[in-house]
Amino acid sequence: MDNFVDPERLADLRRDFHRRPEPAWREFWTTCRIVDELERLGVTEIHVGPDALATERRVAVPDEEELEFWFEQARSAGARESTLERLEGGNTGAVAVLERGDGPTVALRVDIDGLPIEEATDSDHTPAAEGFRSRHAGTMHACGHDAHATIGLGVLEAVAESDFNGTLKVVFQPSEERIAGGEPAAKSGHLDDVDALIAVHVGLNHPTGTVVPGIEGSLAVRQMAVTFTGSPSHAGAQPNEGNNANQALATAVTNLQGIARHSDGITRVNVGVIEGGTAVNVVSERAYMEVEVRGGTTDLMEYMASDAERVIRSAAEMHNCEFEIEPQGGAPSIESDDRLCNLIATVADDHPSVDRLVETDRLSGSEDAAHLMAEVQNRGGIAAYVGVGTDHPTGHHTSTFDVDETSLGIGVDVLTEAVLALNESDN
Amino acid sequence: MDNFVDPERLADLRRDFHRRPEPAWREFWTTCRIVDELERLGVTEIHVGPDALATERRVAVPDEEELEFWFEQARSAGARESTLERLEGGNTGAVAVLERGDGPTVALRVDIDGLPIEEATDSDHTPAAEGFRSRHAGTMHACGHDAHATIGLGVLEAVAESDFNGTLKVVFQPSEERIAGGEPAAKSGHLDDVDALIAVHVGLNHPTGTVVPGIEGSLAVRQMAVTFTGSPSHAGAQPNEGNNANQALATAVTNLQGIARHSDGITRVNVGVIEGGTAVNVVSERAYMEVEVRGGTTDLMEYMASDAERVIRSAAEMHNCEFEIEPQGGAPSIESDDRLCNLIATVADDHPSVDRLVETDRLSGSEDAAHLMAEVQNRGGIAAYVGVGTDHPTGHHTSTFDVDETSLGIGVDVLTEAVLALNESDN
Amino acid sequence: MDNFVDPERLADLRRDFHRRPEPAWREFWTTCRIVDELERLGVTEIHVGPDALATERRVAVPDEEELEFWFEQARSAGARESTLERLEGGNTGAVAVLERGDGPTVALRVDIDGLPIEEATDSDHTPAAEGFRSRHAGTMHACGHDAHATIGLGVLEAVAESDFNGTLKVVFQPSEERIAGGEPAAKSGHLDDVDALIAVHVGLNHPTGTVVPGIEGSLAVRQMAVTFTGSPSHAGAQPNEGNNANQALATAVTNLQGIARHSDGITRVNVGVIEGGTAVNVVSERAYMEVEVRGGTTDLMEYMASDAERVIRSAAEMHNCEFEIEPQGGAPSIESDDRLCNLIATVADDHPSVDRLVETDRLSGSEDAAHLMAEVQNRGGIAAYVGVGTDHPTGHHTSTFDVDETSLGIGVDVLTEAVLALNESDN
Amino acid sequence: MDNFVDPERLADLRRDFHRRPEPAWREFWTTCRIVDELERLGVTEIHVGPDALATERRVAVPDEEELEFWFEQARSAGARESTLERLEGGNTGAVAVLERGDGPTVALRVDIDGLPIEEATDSDHTPAAEGFRSRHAGTMHACGHDAHATIGLGVLEAVAESDFNGTLKVVFQPSEERIAGGEPAAKSGHLDDVDALIAVHVGLNHPTGTVVPGIEGSLAVRQMAVTFTGSPSHAGAQPNEGNNANQALATAVTNLQGIARHSDGITRVNVGVIEGGTAVNVVSERAYMEVEVRGGTTDLMEYMASDAERVIRSAAEMHNCEFEIEPQGGAPSIESDDRLCNLIATVADDHPSVDRLVETDRLSGSEDAAHLMAEVQNRGGIAAYVGVGTDHPTGHHTSTFDVDETSLGIGVDVLTEAVLALNESDN
Repeated sequence: MDNFVDPERLADLRRDFHRRPEPAWREFWTTCRIVDELERLGVTEIHVGPDALATERRVAVPDEEELEFWFEQARSAGARESTLERLEGGNTGAVAVLERGDGPTVALRVDIDGLPIEEATDSDHTPAAEGFRSRHAGTMHACGHDAHATIGLGVLEAVAESDFNGTLKVVFQPSEERIAGGEPAAKSGHLDDVDALIAVHVGLNHPTGTVVPGIEGSLAVRQMAVTFTGSPSHAGAQPNEGNNANQALATAVTNLQGIARHSDGITRVNVGVIEGGTAVNVVSERAYMEVEVRGGTTDLMEYMASDAERVIRSAAEMHNCEFEIEPQGGAPSIESDDRLCNLIATVADDHPSVDRLVETDRLSGSEDAAHLMAEVQNRGGIAAYVGVGTDHPTGHHTSTFDVDETSLGIGVDVLTEAVLALNESDN
Repeated sequence: MDNFVDPERLADLRRDFHRRPEPAWREFWTTCRIVDELERLGVTEIHVGPDALATERRVAVPDEEELEFWFEQARSAGARESTLERLEGGNTGAVAVLERGDGPTVALRVDIDGLPIEEATDSDHTPAAEGFRSRHAGTMHACGHDAHATIGLGVLEAVAESDFNGTLKVVFQPSEERIAGGEPAAKSGHLDDVDALIAVHVGLNHPTGTVVPGIEGSLAVRQMAVTFTGSPSHAGAQPNEGNNANQALATAVTNLQGIARHSDGITRVNVGVIEGGTAVNVVSERAYMEVEVRGGTTDLMEYMASDAERVIRSAAEMHNCEFEIEPQGGAPSIESDDRLCNLIATVADDHPSVDRLVETDRLSGSEDAAHLMAEVQNRGGIAAYVGVGTDHPTGHHTSTFDVDETSLGIGVDVLTEAVLALNESDN
Repeated sequence: MDNFVDPERLADLRRDFHRRPEPAWREFWTTCRIVDELERLGVTEIHVGPDALATERRVAVPDEEELEFWFEQARSAGARESTLERLEGGNTGAVAVLERGDGPTVALRVDIDGLPIEEATDSDHTPAAEGFRSRHAGTMHACGHDAHATIGLGVLEAVAESDFNGTLKVVFQPSEERIAGGEPAAKSGHLDDVDALIAVHVGLNHPTGTVVPGIEGSLAVRQMAVTFTGSPSHAGAQPNEGNNANQALATAVTNLQGIARHSDGITRVNVGVIEGGTAVNVVSERAYMEVEVRGGTTDLMEYMASDAERVIRSAAEMHNCEFEIEPQGGAPSIESDDRLCNLIATVADDHPSVDRLVETDRLSGSEDAAHLMAEVQNRGGIAAYVGVGTDHPTGHHTSTFDVDETSLGIGVDVLTEAVLALNESDN
Repeated sequence: MDNFVDPERLADLRRDFHRRPEPAWREFWTTCRIVDELERLGVTEIHVGPDALATERRVAVPDEEELEFWFEQARSAGARESTLERLEGGNTGAVAVLERGDGPTVALRVDIDGLPIEEATDSDHTPAAEGFRSRHAGTMHACGHDAHATIGLGVLEAVAESDFNGTLKVVFQPSEERIAGGEPAAKSGHLDDVDALIAVHVGLNHPTGTVVPGIEGSLAVRQMAVTFTGSPSHAGAQPNEGNNANQALATAVTNLQGIARHSDGITRVNVGVIEGGTAVNVVSERAYMEVEVRGGTTDLMEYMASDAERVIRSAAEMHNCEFEIEPQGGAPSIESDDRLCNLIATVADDHPSVDRLVETDRLSGSEDAAHLMAEVQNRGGIAAYVGVGTDHPTGHHTSTFDVDETSLGIGVDVLTEAVLALNESDN
């Protein structure tokens, strides 16, 4: 069997994306490149910018200066102006819609952002050796989202050329790495009529040729940026006139760990980043921390989040400080529907390059595709999170991560067959 | 010069008190014995029980059972029933008033309670050797309050026999060791018309023959009994269903130390007693602690107390517990008036047995005579806290503490002369 | 089908035990009563005292005075002197051995201790209404160990009368409630040749007629009594001269919660009891706490225990205190062997009074039968923890707990049949 | 009376320094400018670089890149190359020696560094209005060290022209603001033979015309940069595999406050700056904090420092982290000698422009002149810290701080007269 889409074209596309990784909410060039490709494929309904996102639900958006830097860099790299201006303020990402009849509405969700990691220059790191290493210092596609964007375009092309008679929507979602793009995408309105949603991830320690039809059990997560504001004073001369934000933070860090473990299952809490004060001899006026809580279920995560807020509030009060909790990213836990998983398993099993099906797997981290899946499921649809194996020389989020490009075609094929099968099963 | 009062009688009286030490708010026998002696001296205006105290301001009062025990013991030891019944509920102490004319109103404050210390049985400990060791197990006059009560009675006797033409009030104050009797005595109304108040303490590391006309600088203090109430749960099975009072307490203990030092002077905080929980495998429902704060001035103590309350409240909230702060003893800091100190210095200097005047000294602890002194001072009167040296073989609050009984007469003489001098200076 | 043993006799026996509950390591009368009964049944090999336990592995043994109290009470209640003297020092419990041939060696473990709970006097509480309420103030069989001891004796009687041709050992284990008797029993030597061990518990929220052939998943647990020793000083006068044991304890309590959750499964930590200091104005010289850690597996418990020790050591050092960790009770987690569970399920299913089998259940707490089970399993044998349903009006460890005595006969029957089936399956 | 030195020249010099403020250990241009001026005055013995400092005792030295930046900026601004190259690596500052006979050896200490403050551009801020505002962005002479350097040079000029027959040493000390230059200057060897040392500070809330002959009571201080190193892990997937440096830091921050207050006097502790971790979902591998301790005496500071080190070590151990304490600046407390203060009071009183003597004053912060003073005093010499009033529109360390240049001449005069008087008093 031939692949649906020319493997070489997929590889070229993926390398294009790989060269220009852009972090969360800064996928300006990437979005423009996707739109260009969509137009080349003849897609006529393309939503970008605020049309693709519930923009007011975005969190963890960088400041103006940072957005400007990436915006201008995208412009310099040749991003199309008419698309680019739609993305201003970090409204990145796109939704492509292919209406072909009154069959089912199927959605595919792929994420498109890179990571703040400096890519390796080692000669045995293929992107370095073959000239498509990241051109953006300190930024890298180290989690395969370049492959995801490519697969999204590939499936569109394949389905466009098929006799599919429903509607296919491909969501090119920004800011997954900050688990911040999922909710705005879920609430964009584009999922309101979706009957089945498939999210895809390459790798996850599965080699090329393996497919995981339905992944379960990621942890629900919520992240918060917390600022304590006290008042400064000279630590030697007027220690009592200050309200010490560093002490408030320290009390919070220690007591956040004291939130009781839960009998219903897994809970987590972490204060990953702390920062406070301006000088050794000044009582600290301001302290900042980034906190995340997780749970084996969304309820468990909410339990942790609620207690964490109480701890933070009390720590502030204890040291006479004000506090502010700014929501950052978050996601519920993932649950894939058996019916969709079975359908994917069937089509994957038929693919000549798929030599192994892993019935299910657990994500140990969190994933904001969960927002889109829950949106569809809550409206009566079905959803699955599908793993497409790829040989990756080192772990995700490392500077020598790479994907086996032969897996791109497998991903496109299996997902296309799944879309077509959904069409048939519906009829 | 002869002593005003027969030294042997003073010694006998002191030994009587020494044999029957009674702790704070339990001075039943002691009060009755004082009243008997007052009547023997012909004093006609004697206030006891609720007439001697602002009873509603008492704190740290023992529970019924404990009061009952000491009450019955006093009865068995022959306390006069008519006096005893006035003291029910722990309204101990007495105020004696000697009205002799329209001269100034002078007050003398002596404290009368013992300590929860088991007295030594050593043969070189005079009370043991000479048969007046404490008959009350675990209780002892280890701070000289037996001497103070004696001196109070001695001064009354001496002044009664003099040509003093003002009013002398002697306040026999209970519960100094819990710094709990000072405020109820100060607010009893008996000090409202006092022109000059003298408080007296023997020893304080000064030998017999030394007098300190004015002591300064005790720390203001406030004590609190704090209870945290959470909810219990099985620590293995439902850790999340409990609200952990032990954690609330631990957070409070740690953060009370975090109250900033103050640029205006000395501050102190201590959590002396902690107790919580019922079983190792149960999330603690209740935890209790005793806290004290001090300050070089009353303002500094108030600063600490106010911050301590905030810390306690926040620690409770942090762990979803209720809390209750029950006020215990407290006292402002001591300030002796120069005019009164000078007067005392003059009369002391004239006494043949006084060989050394120490201009001033600092109390390192706290002392609730400060309440009475402040009351008088705030109403325009003057006050001094006078040290009367006595050879004491070991430190205050030790099981072998004792006083040199020759100092009793010196104390009576100097204070009597001071009262008389106040009479004259006023005329 | 008739019961193996006369139900009335079982009920009488259970009521005898119920009347005289004795807490951990104080089961003097209970052990003597068991020995009397064993002799009545004609059992000739009976081990008591140090012969029944690896006595040096005992922890959480009460002090001399407490042991003496219960010892004398047992004597007064008529405990046989010759047995009693073997139990001195709290070496309670017994092992009965019935050798009947060269068939398999089967062991049954029952626990015999009561709880520090005051039994209800309500008229609808059967023990109160029918005259067998606890005669020991503040102590009660509130977890059914009276039924366990009875079942142990019943099975012995039934097997003795059967054609069983192996060896049956019944371990009457003390101090389960402190999870302290399991290890000394496991290491007594009596289990060294055991091919199959059955532990039994009544109730656990299963009604009469239900049997749970194999319970899984109790948490491994370890308990510690921790003492911090600093040095005292006057909190106002010389705060710096003390080393504050209360602060060390508070730091430990807070940071014990900070031991990281584990990716392999359930962890728990609790500081259930705290106590420290002598007076509000003295820097605390000594503080005491009781800590327990648990884990979904024994490894997870060890992870927690090891980190807890480090936290305790560092908290002591931080505040310049000494510390001592005295091991208290502990237990590994429970794993029942399928083969034995299946065998029990089969015989239970055949019993006319068993109307429901619950395939498996999880203990939410901990259970020191796990020590005995692991000992047998580590030596190549098999083990199961069997639940025998009983209607209990209120939860375990409540003052109105009671058992349905008809379940005693069911327990005896099912366990006897299991012993006999093991005999057959081995042949 | 005429001023010793032309006031206009002093003002010009001060403005030159004001234009080019350089922070601690970066006083490259300033040092070169001072050397140029010394040569202009005909001073022949000038020590710079490692000859002026015990270079190995320097702390808080910036990194190479930062030093390079300021070095090159000084070069661009015309600093003399031959001087500049002596200062490489941040060995800034100078010692000028004027040997004029066998009279006493007198030293004057002035500090020369600026502050990391952006100078105001307000039109009523004289330096802005008159064109000598800082040319170095973010750096400013906001504490009058420009005036100090000027006064140092002025006194040299005046004494050179007098009949002084001893030795005058002027120490132009770098890095006072980081309290880091004092110790290297004190241990340079240049103070070994000094009989009397005068340190000077302008302002301190005293107006032009006031002189404070001897300042007392700065707090002794020590500063530390602390790094905790743990190990990172994914906070959701493997929380137990990390060693959390942020938790170690939080425990340290909280418990540093728990170091007991001291009965001997003032103590302080502050954690002014904290920073840790790299991402919200990663267990923090590294955390950093800047700590300072102070004491009313050097012993009290040492007490705090010693306990702080123990707390930091224990906090690291508690969370399985490594730690490193890098000493930063520090200083003993200041004690001015009466004899020298009296001498200065006498000469100041004679000055026509001095209208007020303030007998003594307390510095509320810390000051590393204390190192030089202690060095001289420990070797048998005398020392004083002299305040020279100057009208300053706003407080020290504010962006609109300025000095009244007429105070420059007063300072030069009074200090010169003091040097001459020391000469006489010695003869």
